[in-house]
Amino acid sequence: MTAKDFARRMEAAVAQAASAGLTGLLVTPGPDLAYFTGYKPTAITERLTLLILDGDHDPHLIVPTLERPDAAAAPGYSVVETTDWADGTDPYEPVSRLLDPAGHYAISDNAWAMHLLGLQAALPQSRYTSMTASLPMLRAVKGPDEVALLEAAGAAADAAYEQIKGVRFAGRTETQVGNDLAGFLREHGHSQVDFTVVGSGPNGANPHHEMGDRVIEEGDMVVLDFGGLKDGYGSDTTRTVHVGPPTPLERDIFDIVRAAQQAAFEAVQPGVPCQEIDRVARKVITDAGYGENFIHRVGHGIGLTTHEPPYMVEGETRPMVPGMCFSIEPGIYLPDRFGVRIEDIVTVTENAGRRLNNTSHDLHIVA
Amino acid sequence: MTAKDFARRMEAAVAQAASAGLTGLLVTPGPDLAYFTGYKPTAITERLTLLILDGDHDPHLIVPTLERPDAAAAPGYSVVETTDWADGTDPYEPVSRLLDPAGHYAISDNAWAMHLLGLQAALPQSRYTSMTASLPMLRAVKGPDEVALLEAAGAAADAAYEQIKGVRFAGRTETQVGNDLAGFLREHGHSQVDFTVVGSGPNGANPHHEMGDRVIEEGDMVVLDFGGLKDGYGSDTTRTVHVGPPTPLERDIFDIVRAAQQAAFEAVQPGVPCQEIDRVARKVITDAGYGENFIHRVGHGIGLTTHEPPYMVEGETRPMVPGMCFSIEPGIYLPDRFGVRIEDIVTVTENAGRRLNNTSHDLHIVA
Repeated sequence: MTAKDFARRMEAAVAQAASAGLTGLLVTPGPDLAYFTGYKPTAITERLTLLILDGDHDPHLIVPTLERPDAAAAPGYSVVETTDWADGTDPYEPVSRLLDPAGHYAISDNAWAMHLLGLQAALPQSRYTSMTASLPMLRAVKGPDEVALLEAAGAAADAAYEQIKGVRFAGRTETQVGNDLAGFLREHGHSQVDFTVVGSGPNGANPHHEMGDRVIEEGDMVVLDFGGLKDGYGSDTTRTVHVGPPTPLERDIFDIVRAAQQAAFEAVQPGVPCQEIDRVARKVITDAGYGENFIHRVGHGIGLTTHEPPYMVEGETRPMVPGMCFSIEPGIYLPDRFGVRIEDIVTVTENAGRRLNNTSHDLHIVA
Repeated sequence: MTAKDFARRMEAAVAQAASAGLTGLLVTPGPDLAYFTGYKPTAITERLTLLILDGDHDPHLIVPTLERPDAAAAPGYSVVETTDWADGTDPYEPVSRLLDPAGHYAISDNAWAMHLLGLQAALPQSRYTSMTASLPMLRAVKGPDEVALLEAAGAAADAAYEQIKGVRFAGRTETQVGNDLAGFLREHGHSQVDFTVVGSGPNGANPHHEMGDRVIEEGDMVVLDFGGLKDGYGSDTTRTVHVGPPTPLERDIFDIVRAAQQAAFEAVQPGVPCQEIDRVARKVITDAGYGENFIHRVGHGIGLTTHEPPYMVEGETRPMVPGMCFSIEPGIYLPDRFGVRIEDIVTVTENAGRRLNNTSHDLHIVA
């Protein structure tokens, strides 16, 4: 990505905002700022950093004085004007001079409420909506370079899964196995590991259980959900394994989830509403009698962060578009017993879906 | 911390909010939610989790359905009522039924703008201010247990510094030394390392430079600023070391920063305005001719997170109170040459300050 590439992204976003009736975009640290400038401040963000994009001015970055050298090292820095503000001064004052006092702006979802309130107080006539509410497709359709980076992250996650299949599960804690998994992700090029869920036995019935001191036993179903960032793009994969032979019920539940994942994958097609993917997976699980046990949406977009639009959920009526990348991750959770989830990242091609994770969906038996 | 302790914190906060003319508090994941309930969701927070504290109802926690089991495992869960919301439904609808439509609420600084906008849209007559703007002292005065935890985190950081003094600097990259430092922090009980600044030579002149590929050389000044969380409480220490013997200028700059840190430390006293600490350090540096090179505030509070009120900055006129804990970290930065910073965490006692970091302030010569 060159400075010109970043400039093109900024121009396209300003045009998109204008079409949506917005004055411009207000972008704070996180995936949005990385997308437009390549700048990823590591600092804690109680100090305001804000990129202002509108049709009337060149892109303008507001940064804390002490972080200006970091911003200047970002690849997109040369195509933005920069104003810095010092500790002890009011950061909203220089921002308010750059905004339309009665403007309507899209602001990054994860901007701190403290900063939004500062802007609202400085410009009482201004209006704001979240990036996801007003420009949900801003980063949702990936270019070929981005798809390639997501595919490389997916391949690294696949390699980590192949390795974790070979470690000992029985008699070790979830945390020990999770640490192995994090190590494998790093070994295969992840600079950041965002989550390593190891949900063994009853813990697998809690979809967001991360990992704990529970000792994994012979006979456990174990949900492994892991991901992070490789070269700036996300991975997110789930496979469910079993310690020793499964019971018939465990096998049944597994097969239902597997069929739901496959059916949803096969429904991916440009023009079809995103919510259809959720409906297809949910129908397979509901028809099998476990609808009440599938307690989350079927998926979420992925790119510079591991959760972003498009959300594959009932109510998301926007159509799938070639280049979109998202998870398909149905699950069945039997409280106090076990859970099963299977997740792949999928990209939309001209006429179908293509998986960016490619390890087997067979129920793998671990030791 | 028992459920009762958490309940007491919630009651005290509601009383404090009432005194400030507020209807209540809206608390989102991060240090505020950890403070009130011990609940630290590891999940990504595009899904709304919100604790509502007001005088008219019992504390009420709104959580995503799939994260309810995690919330239920938190120590403060038994003293809150809980409502969950499922993917595909509107989370602001159940919240708005629990809020006063014309209420005035303090909301966590780091709440997502997306969620604040959702509340503002659901209840157009409601008003909001940030926790730091409206209740800045909410978590600023630490109890004896909290000071003990901060002291233990400081002692661990001290132990890590003693170890890093013994490693090889010359001929290795900043990242290699930083990784050593992170390893030592973990070895001494840190569950999370938030930053390991290794600013060698010219990189030290950028206060927030983290670490990079620069190979450290004989003759470099090296700023080491490191911290994270141990048992839930923060450490944050800076020492500046030198590879081989320093030049007279380097020695002079170092001595000025050291004197500024000491003078500021000696000014700590209950009743004195926080900004006085910044002024005292700045006067020493300005009198020595380097005022323009001290480009940040002198310090920030620390507790369940590494940056929080009280901010030790010009304009913060609130008085110091026994139990406050904050950094004192003056620095001098000579662009393209080198930087020096010395930082300790200090707690306010009945009549003075007490350091929670205790390694020597002498300029240590590394190999």
